[in-house]
Amino acid sequence: MLGNKSLKINCGVIGIYGLPRAAQYAYWGMYALQHRGAESAGIITSDENQFYFHRGMGEVSTVFSDAEQISSLKGHIAVGHNRYSTTGASDPTNIQPLFTTYWGGELGIAHNGNVTNYLSLRKKLEASGALFRTQTDTEVFLHLIANRREKEFVPRLAGALKQVKGAYSLVIITSDSLYAIRDPYGIRPLCLGKLRNGYVVASESCALDIMKAKYVRDIKPGEIMVIDRDGCRIADQLKPRHPAMCIFEFVYFARPDSKIFDENVDKLRRRLGRRLAWESPAEADVVISVPDSSNTAALGYSEASGIKFEIGLIRNHYVGRTFILPDQKIRDIDALIKYNPVRGVIEGRDIVVVDDSIVRGTTSKKIISILRSAGAKKIHYRVSSPPIISPCFYGVDIPTFSELIAHHYSVDEIKKKIGVDSLAYLSIEGLLSVSKRPADHFCTACFSRNYPVPGDAVPNSRKMLKNPE
Amino acid sequence: MLGNKSLKINCGVIGIYGLPRAAQYAYWGMYALQHRGAESAGIITSDENQFYFHRGMGEVSTVFSDAEQISSLKGHIAVGHNRYSTTGASDPTNIQPLFTTYWGGELGIAHNGNVTNYLSLRKKLEASGALFRTQTDTEVFLHLIANRREKEFVPRLAGALKQVKGAYSLVIITSDSLYAIRDPYGIRPLCLGKLRNGYVVASESCALDIMKAKYVRDIKPGEIMVIDRDGCRIADQLKPRHPAMCIFEFVYFARPDSKIFDENVDKLRRRLGRRLAWESPAEADVVISVPDSSNTAALGYSEASGIKFEIGLIRNHYVGRTFILPDQKIRDIDALIKYNPVRGVIEGRDIVVVDDSIVRGTTSKKIISILRSAGAKKIHYRVSSPPIISPCFYGVDIPTFSELIAHHYSVDEIKKKIGVDSLAYLSIEGLLSVSKRPADHFCTACFSRNYPVPGDAVPNSRKMLKNPE
Amino acid sequence: MLGNKSLKINCGVIGIYGLPRAAQYAYWGMYALQHRGAESAGIITSDENQFYFHRGMGEVSTVFSDAEQISSLKGHIAVGHNRYSTTGASDPTNIQPLFTTYWGGELGIAHNGNVTNYLSLRKKLEASGALFRTQTDTEVFLHLIANRREKEFVPRLAGALKQVKGAYSLVIITSDSLYAIRDPYGIRPLCLGKLRNGYVVASESCALDIMKAKYVRDIKPGEIMVIDRDGCRIADQLKPRHPAMCIFEFVYFARPDSKIFDENVDKLRRRLGRRLAWESPAEADVVISVPDSSNTAALGYSEASGIKFEIGLIRNHYVGRTFILPDQKIRDIDALIKYNPVRGVIEGRDIVVVDDSIVRGTTSKKIISILRSAGAKKIHYRVSSPPIISPCFYGVDIPTFSELIAHHYSVDEIKKKIGVDSLAYLSIEGLLSVSKRPADHFCTACFSRNYPVPGDAVPNSRKMLKNPE
Amino acid sequence: MLGNKSLKINCGVIGIYGLPRAAQYAYWGMYALQHRGAESAGIITSDENQFYFHRGMGEVSTVFSDAEQISSLKGHIAVGHNRYSTTGASDPTNIQPLFTTYWGGELGIAHNGNVTNYLSLRKKLEASGALFRTQTDTEVFLHLIANRREKEFVPRLAGALKQVKGAYSLVIITSDSLYAIRDPYGIRPLCLGKLRNGYVVASESCALDIMKAKYVRDIKPGEIMVIDRDGCRIADQLKPRHPAMCIFEFVYFARPDSKIFDENVDKLRRRLGRRLAWESPAEADVVISVPDSSNTAALGYSEASGIKFEIGLIRNHYVGRTFILPDQKIRDIDALIKYNPVRGVIEGRDIVVVDDSIVRGTTSKKIISILRSAGAKKIHYRVSSPPIISPCFYGVDIPTFSELIAHHYSVDEIKKKIGVDSLAYLSIEGLLSVSKRPADHFCTACFSRNYPVPGDAVPNSRKMLKNPE
Repeated sequence: MLGNKSLKINCGVIGIYGLPRAAQYAYWGMYALQHRGAESAGIITSDENQFYFHRGMGEVSTVFSDAEQISSLKGHIAVGHNRYSTTGASDPTNIQPLFTTYWGGELGIAHNGNVTNYLSLRKKLEASGALFRTQTDTEVFLHLIANRREKEFVPRLAGALKQVKGAYSLVIITSDSLYAIRDPYGIRPLCLGKLRNGYVVASESCALDIMKAKYVRDIKPGEIMVIDRDGCRIADQLKPRHPAMCIFEFVYFARPDSKIFDENVDKLRRRLGRRLAWESPAEADVVISVPDSSNTAALGYSEASGIKFEIGLIRNHYVGRTFILPDQKIRDIDALIKYNPVRGVIEGRDIVVVDDSIVRGTTSKKIISILRSAGAKKIHYRVSSPPIISPCFYGVDIPTFSELIAHHYSVDEIKKKIGVDSLAYLSIEGLLSVSKRPADHFCTACFSRNYPVPGDAVPNSRKMLKNPE
Repeated sequence: MLGNKSLKINCGVIGIYGLPRAAQYAYWGMYALQHRGAESAGIITSDENQFYFHRGMGEVSTVFSDAEQISSLKGHIAVGHNRYSTTGASDPTNIQPLFTTYWGGELGIAHNGNVTNYLSLRKKLEASGALFRTQTDTEVFLHLIANRREKEFVPRLAGALKQVKGAYSLVIITSDSLYAIRDPYGIRPLCLGKLRNGYVVASESCALDIMKAKYVRDIKPGEIMVIDRDGCRIADQLKPRHPAMCIFEFVYFARPDSKIFDENVDKLRRRLGRRLAWESPAEADVVISVPDSSNTAALGYSEASGIKFEIGLIRNHYVGRTFILPDQKIRDIDALIKYNPVRGVIEGRDIVVVDDSIVRGTTSKKIISILRSAGAKKIHYRVSSPPIISPCFYGVDIPTFSELIAHHYSVDEIKKKIGVDSLAYLSIEGLLSVSKRPADHFCTACFSRNYPVPGDAVPNSRKMLKNPE
Repeated sequence: MLGNKSLKINCGVIGIYGLPRAAQYAYWGMYALQHRGAESAGIITSDENQFYFHRGMGEVSTVFSDAEQISSLKGHIAVGHNRYSTTGASDPTNIQPLFTTYWGGELGIAHNGNVTNYLSLRKKLEASGALFRTQTDTEVFLHLIANRREKEFVPRLAGALKQVKGAYSLVIITSDSLYAIRDPYGIRPLCLGKLRNGYVVASESCALDIMKAKYVRDIKPGEIMVIDRDGCRIADQLKPRHPAMCIFEFVYFARPDSKIFDENVDKLRRRLGRRLAWESPAEADVVISVPDSSNTAALGYSEASGIKFEIGLIRNHYVGRTFILPDQKIRDIDALIKYNPVRGVIEGRDIVVVDDSIVRGTTSKKIISILRSAGAKKIHYRVSSPPIISPCFYGVDIPTFSELIAHHYSVDEIKKKIGVDSLAYLSIEGLLSVSKRPADHFCTACFSRNYPVPGDAVPNSRKMLKNPE
Repeated sequence: MLGNKSLKINCGVIGIYGLPRAAQYAYWGMYALQHRGAESAGIITSDENQFYFHRGMGEVSTVFSDAEQISSLKGHIAVGHNRYSTTGASDPTNIQPLFTTYWGGELGIAHNGNVTNYLSLRKKLEASGALFRTQTDTEVFLHLIANRREKEFVPRLAGALKQVKGAYSLVIITSDSLYAIRDPYGIRPLCLGKLRNGYVVASESCALDIMKAKYVRDIKPGEIMVIDRDGCRIADQLKPRHPAMCIFEFVYFARPDSKIFDENVDKLRRRLGRRLAWESPAEADVVISVPDSSNTAALGYSEASGIKFEIGLIRNHYVGRTFILPDQKIRDIDALIKYNPVRGVIEGRDIVVVDDSIVRGTTSKKIISILRSAGAKKIHYRVSSPPIISPCFYGVDIPTFSELIAHHYSVDEIKKKIGVDSLAYLSIEGLLSVSKRPADHFCTACFSRNYPVPGDAVPNSRKMLKNPE
């Protein structure tokens, strides 16, 4: 389920070990993880003799457009990666998984997250002669590993990771092994599954479901898991930190049919909707959602409020990145192309619109305008997360302060700006109450400015830090 | 909203008159009509001096991938066409709108429907020296017009149309005019809208909404409407027939936010769901739909039955035509790629699954299998239309008899084949009851074998015909 | 050998009968005929059950870029066509061979030449209801054939051809036969070859050589040759006209290693050079040619004059149609890209430059300027054909009157315009003297304005006509 | 002039300084150098604020297919590179110029030649943590530079170059300067030109001619030339070695209109032909060449022998890399596609064929077979260089020992294998006699096994070395 926001998460990762033709499993898993990154895709495989690659710009279906491209990727070990290319879209050198040859052999790496001390690490590495070929923070892992002198791979890897700060869920392929690692804070999800005699590692459990792999458990924060001929085991454990899982994965990013951080996303999201109804009720004829990412929360709101749920906006799934507005005479044409109001549902009604979040406010404003044109009477906007007041430094492409509407305006001002009759956000407490985990196991920095992990550009992070280093 | 069936309708058509840069309105409209045909697209425009073309294979966004392609299509008159290329996919000569030069000038034509006496017309035309360049039935309109000798265009057109049997909603462009025609039975929809000083003609009203055009009325069966410098008027009226509107447009094809045959599709579809619940109730914990085309009917079923609606299957909108199954080891992988079960909704529950139709039964069977794997207890399958027992000859690509599961098996046998605990279809009476129109104003041939319009290959059509010719 | 002029001939044609996998022979032949048309290419084959096509824009190597495209064209009968698309380059509907289905069956046609009464034929055909789908004169053959009522194919074809005026060398494929036809004037070449049990028909003999087929003889003017299961025979003979073979084929178009009109091109071209030396000697240190099309004539000039031949200009064969001049600061950069002067040959020398023809004069002027920059002292320009004073209406894309430098200026004026120390053209008598055929068997219209065949746009043709109709 | 051999040289390089829109000059120069590498191309420019890139697979005209691609490369400094991708053709990461960011800033590099101690350098660099991203020897220059600690660029560069052995003509771009370097042996050519206020550096002088730049002089062996705001000067001089210029550049690679190693290629090549006639005369009716690379030598042979030169083989310049041989029934079809015999020249004649070299012997054999089929009586094959008995390690892709026909067979045996009446090669003494330089200033290793520069894989190089290190 593709989100409707300008928010972008950096990646989905997948790893396969011990399945013949591992590439096709990686490919299927990447289809399931497509919502985590649709601008480039790649797979690296190994048959223990040789590595095989295919990478390209575009969605998985574009990059892998014929069967031969997959069947030529031989071997029983594979790593795959879906990516949003936030910079240098036309430069294919940034496409993951990255691959390198170094003194210790060859390895490929797929990364979801963001290294917060990337700039200082890069500067240090370059000073010692390192050549960076990409603009990605992922490349520092390769240089750090190549600069270690430990003879065994796991200590070398652990030594490198100790120098890194930030968010990283990694899948690494070597000639004969697969490694799965989650950073010590556990910021991004990563889970382990089993299929016949093989193993699957993926950002979300929906990638296991598609290939009928059985969910085993999450990779735990700080774990370095290795899978090889001797099976799957914990190879090392990085020094643990206080957990800081990204609550926004629950709110928006993860697919509702996934299990992440050991909880069903759809159940949790329905609880968000119910909680929102309790906190901010409304009198209305009908509850509608901003499809598709808010559907489940809207059903929760409908259930708790007793107001009937209807499909009031239809999402046009044919809209690609290439929609053209040659001579825009019609206001909101871009939003109209994407969302079509169902007049029979809207006309003459008081409406609760449930949305999962408001970033810049521009899309919300257009949706309201569309609903008004379709004859809506009163519009009560309900948001199943708190106001976003601060950027993310851990892998979510939340815009800078200046672009965030809630950084500049109060809820009441936003209400007027987007043109609704009432506006309410879920409280931070309400948000944190829906999980079975303790409230302080989550990162809420985008809602609270409380940054759990420091970094070169993280504002005031050291001061705010719960777990100083 | 893209259907989830192997059913394909042949086309969407759009016409624009009197709007500067008409091509961009056509383009926007074709985006809204994309669900009616995604394998080729084309626009022809006229500025009264010259014609401009752009046609290509693929979705609208593929065919028109940069703004210049649209801005180079000059003029205030445009016709556009979305098409499923059922044959000769790689041969671009079949792409509509077709265009020709003949003794009377130049014209372009976009057609939705199917000419049932195509083969006999073609044979007759070829005998008199006509060269056919495409495999499409649309081409006969061009030859018939070119072979008439009437000096004025409208009589020439009417004379040609009198020779044609079958379903046709046409939009025709000449150097200075736009024509909109619906066959005398009114089988396929076509409606008229107004935008500023201009006019819009489209298969469904959703194409008017996207450009904020006002819905005026349907083109009536047999009407030849002309739009030119003197405005919009009825130029001629073909001899009327007893109406035979395609009921399947309501069931499945049309977008829920459209108005066709002068009724809101989503309201009618919700009534189908309610009626289905009354006819065939079930005891269950939850109602889910086969997304996206059955969503509204499922909400209707939920409402009438009082059983909670949930999102139990997530549709993967990234799946394109190119999905590859290099070495299929996993049962139902193709369905799993497309539909992901939400385990938290399914597991341990008794479920009502609402689907809009069953064609071959293969997809239904796979969906059931997916739901079983996700832990469903009892599955009650409810179909918001009657069993499809016969092919369509009027423009819907319903497979041959031998591929239709309901042609071979009783409802009870189908229940066993797809593996559900109970199965019920809506009755024909129930289906026809939801419209405000009289029951005999619809074509129900795919459910009843009662073919209203004869043709070269239409089985027993003359015998069954209500309105013999 | 690609010409260096802006002159373009319309086509090369090839036909194969009786060779398994005929498509590959057609493909090889089209490679040899590539100089006759490099902007589109196509092959149609038949295995007597079915027809197979592949056509596309670009050179043969672009259109047929993998072996499967050729091997999928099954059957032992094939026709192929290379074409310069003079209009509508981006519209693939004009690509030959054209194919059609009509009352008499199916046929494909490849045409080299130009129908001079195309406009009047088209007007007449359209008046009787014909739809033209292309902008090519070739299409009239299809309509004329389809409009005949003769039951047998050969009389039908002959009946159609009798209505056509102009130049045509045709190769036609039907389900089980191949036809080769040359117009009654024999304007364009067409020859017959034999390979094992099969036959080859081609525009020039170089296409026979490439596949080691044996040259048998020319198709004679007015002959309708048929090749089928019963062998190769003359099926009919159109009423003969006084021959009017294109002398420009010898001067420029044909490949030097070809035999056309029953004479070796290279021998004839060498004679042109020798004759030119006798008519217009020069005192110089070295003879150079404008490569590649003038090489042989330059050798002839060198031989007859006793002045040493050298390679003074190198042609850059990498220059494609896409050479870009973003911000032209350097005079003659386009010519410099194409021709590089060999300074060691040029510097300080008096030079004879042999060119085969001067059309607009712009290229000649640039070449002279390049040679001057490279240090040439005196430049004597010698042209192995007479001044071009009039356009061609028989299939050579010689520009309109207004673009022809010799239409506006005398030889002395041209000498000054292009900046040479002396300039001489071959005389018409000299030109015609080099062939073994009588002088009046050639069309010299571009040099003499004496147009042998009338047509809609042919100037004063009836008056000048030797053979009035 | 494209060679007809399976020999490939690695690159052409070009550098521009001080010309507005430098990219277009680089582009023009790369057109002129296209014969040195047609499989990938790239340009990097700098406007002193920013770098701009465009690189791609294919010929220059393919990689730069619209004007915007060039005009988007801003700045007055540019380096360009044409390359034969000997490995990893489909992997665009190998395309030059390479670019990197390191502690000292940014730089781009274009390289012609071959580093003979690449493997040992790479091993050593990897041991210290370096990550190699390409398979090219060029990348070692980047790592070596990045690993130096000199604060100024020129000492850093010189320090790096001192570690490199082998052949290298380099052009380097930094933010504000252009560097041109030739290895201390001067193996590959590199020359300097002047255009208005700017400078041009290029592999051959033909790239200066195309843009009307004036040839200044060769970059001397071991020179590090810098061009910046203060003009052009020698920045440093590497320790000189005994010169070892590649004689094969004269024989085959360089364009005849170029000046390399300070001599006109065409004059030298004509002397090769004359010398060959003196050493190995023949009685014959005609001298022909294997076009295009042997044309000049053949003219020399004709001149010295008094036997008439004719064009006996026509080269088909349309043959691309994609020629397809789906079902080869015809012997020598690949050679026939490339070379067409001019029967009128060949038939019944005794012929001298002048070729510049014989590598594997397969092409020669096919050409002989073609000439025999065209009716040649006696064939005297004359080769304007000595037998190739040993591979090149300095940048020419001469095959391994086992593929070289002259490694296995005597001249007499080769005569029989290729089927000629007589065969003669030029002697090494004859070859070296045609230059104005001393004989020991050339590398003749491919003819003599006398390798002047040592390296990881160079056979017996140390032993044979004239200048031991």
